Amino acid sequence: MINQGLEGIVAAETRMSLVDGERGELIIAGYPIAELAPNATFEETVWLLWNRELPDAEELREFRDDLAARRGIAPEVVDLLRACAGNLVDSMDALRIAAGTISIGGGDARDVVAQFPTIVAAYWRLLHGHEPIAPRRDLGHAANYLYMLSGDVPDAERERALETYLNTVVDHGLNASTFTARVITSTGADLGSAVVGAIGALSGPLHGGAPSRALDMLDAIGTPENAEPWIRDAVEHGGRIMGFGHRVYKTDDPRSLMLRGVAERIGGDKVEFAKKIERTVVDVLAELKPGRQLYANVEFYAGVVMDRCGLPRDLFTPTFASSRVIGWCANVLEQAADNRIIRPSARYVGPPPPEPVPELR
Amino acid sequence: MINQGLEGIVAAETRMSLVDGERGELIIAGYPIAELAPNATFEETVWLLWNRELPDAEELREFRDDLAARRGIAPEVVDLLRACAGNLVDSMDALRIAAGTISIGGGDARDVVAQFPTIVAAYWRLLHGHEPIAPRRDLGHAANYLYMLSGDVPDAERERALETYLNTVVDHGLNASTFTARVITSTGADLGSAVVGAIGALSGPLHGGAPSRALDMLDAIGTPENAEPWIRDAVEHGGRIMGFGHRVYKTDDPRSLMLRGVAERIGGDKVEFAKKIERTVVDVLAELKPGRQLYANVEFYAGVVMDRCGLPRDLFTPTFASSRVIGWCANVLEQAADNRIIRPSARYVGPPPPEPVPELR
Repeated sequence: MINQGLEGIVAAETRMSLVDGERGELIIAGYPIAELAPNATFEETVWLLWNRELPDAEELREFRDDLAARRGIAPEVVDLLRACAGNLVDSMDALRIAAGTISIGGGDARDVVAQFPTIVAAYWRLLHGHEPIAPRRDLGHAANYLYMLSGDVPDAERERALETYLNTVVDHGLNASTFTARVITSTGADLGSAVVGAIGALSGPLHGGAPSRALDMLDAIGTPENAEPWIRDAVEHGGRIMGFGHRVYKTDDPRSLMLRGVAERIGGDKVEFAKKIERTVVDVLAELKPGRQLYANVEFYAGVVMDRCGLPRDLFTPTFASSRVIGWCANVLEQAADNRIIRPSARYVGPPPPEPVPELR
Repeated sequence: MINQGLEGIVAAETRMSLVDGERGELIIAGYPIAELAPNATFEETVWLLWNRELPDAEELREFRDDLAARRGIAPEVVDLLRACAGNLVDSMDALRIAAGTISIGGGDARDVVAQFPTIVAAYWRLLHGHEPIAPRRDLGHAANYLYMLSGDVPDAERERALETYLNTVVDHGLNASTFTARVITSTGADLGSAVVGAIGALSGPLHGGAPSRALDMLDAIGTPENAEPWIRDAVEHGGRIMGFGHRVYKTDDPRSLMLRGVAERIGGDKVEFAKKIERTVVDVLAELKPGRQLYANVEFYAGVVMDRCGLPRDLFTPTFASSRVIGWCANVLEQAADNRIIRPSARYVGPPPPEPVPELR
């Protein structure tokens, strides 16, 4: 039997996250996502995933200060990003290239996590003809990221919204990028190798590489009045509805519910429009394709929330990466602590050996 | 059931290689390794794996010329390698970092394969205080690699030995690095992302990252007279015998038999010593651990052959990578042609959600 996609194959035990696709449940190191994400700071979530318990006040203060002190990137890395910008390299490729150099100086998981937003923001600015803005140590992880993009310190609402998004996507079972990090780690390779491989996996459009598609679809629909005819036409003519459906979730994606709540708290016409589209997709599918239930996935409201935080669409995937890297590092440590090299089998379907073997050369 | 390591799980169909661990058989795109490796040029093997048939004379000439024309690396990549050398970066990390930039200029699989040896040789020279040597278009892939390291064109025997080694390790089922490349590709990510992830996986000591250990063991044993007492002591006291045993092969590794033949044709004291050690390990294990049969794996004679080709031990893994990258590219194309995102499951063994959920912040 070929297990293409390895669907349903249990490849590891983990203490990091429980993904229950039937019940629509996501637990992060013991905490339901709906409890954790809107209430914890990003630094608390990182600590939780890495230590499997929440930090006390003193631990949190020290951890936050230590991460903040590691945010700077080397001038050589800025030069590398400048060269990438000169070649209009995609922002995920630039992140992969720059992040690959962190381990040169012996950087560990804290350095990786601290520097991801600095790399992303610096590259974004270079790509648009601006010099990078140095990180500020007095700001939290999420607020500093937004600051490095624009030079403006975000208000509390935007900071809270971004932290909630980052918390929401910090880990999610053996998704393809996390699994990539585990396969690489299983050979005894170092953290840098695992992180770089995972960035590559996340850059693919079937994983993290296209979270702006849902927003692009909202733009294409344009007006509330156009929602039903547009969606009806797409469903009837095999067009693609973006931001709906998920390999694992057979009911509401708990992350989507969470982020819809965040979007509602921010409010605005775009949020109302997104909710209208979500309802219309569900209604049209129920009418035209009964039984084929599709629910809004994390991509749908993540795009709305990031947009409301002021993040441009090209930064959606690198921002996702800046959160998921926490899960990659946690899974790398977990894999290394109880390791067996990950090496499945393949079935050979090529030609049989020719008889006699023809002369070579 | 937890399938840690995914042993025995069939994750893909492939036309590239058949690995039969019970019978000790390896078929590359229809050709038994013992027929293919010693007789084909490296370019013929690349063509075979990528086209599943051998090239005719005209195709081979054009392919060889085209690969040769793509060998040069950009000055920016040399600068990057220079920076790596200044930080004494490991040669596999340097290959990972430099190879990650190939796709910036839109490089394809041919560029990747053509440039790997150039990167490896340039970095080796920079690390040792020498300027890189430009590739020569009139030399074959293997001969040019040796030329770029030393400035000397190798004799026919060394060229043939290196080509045979490169042919031998070009592909091998779903080994961890090839599987990594497939997982990354399964998300829709590009070739560069897959290759960089695979380099990371190959750098691990449990995969490709320690092929000089067997030679180091020969050095530690030192003399033929010391072979039996040294090995007996290692087996009795749980010391590690390097270059023996393999996850898949339960009998002789056909690649090891092949490379032993290559080593025998080159000859010399070191080859005789390696054969003496191999016999002694087998005999001592038969006496002290009956039933626990261990056979020389590809690492054992690969090290001997590469050493006889004049390659320093630190280049064994990058040289391995310069061959296996052919298999990575072939598997990437195969995965992309019939894709399903590779996403296994995990069993959550972390804490249950606390009741009530404690206050956050």
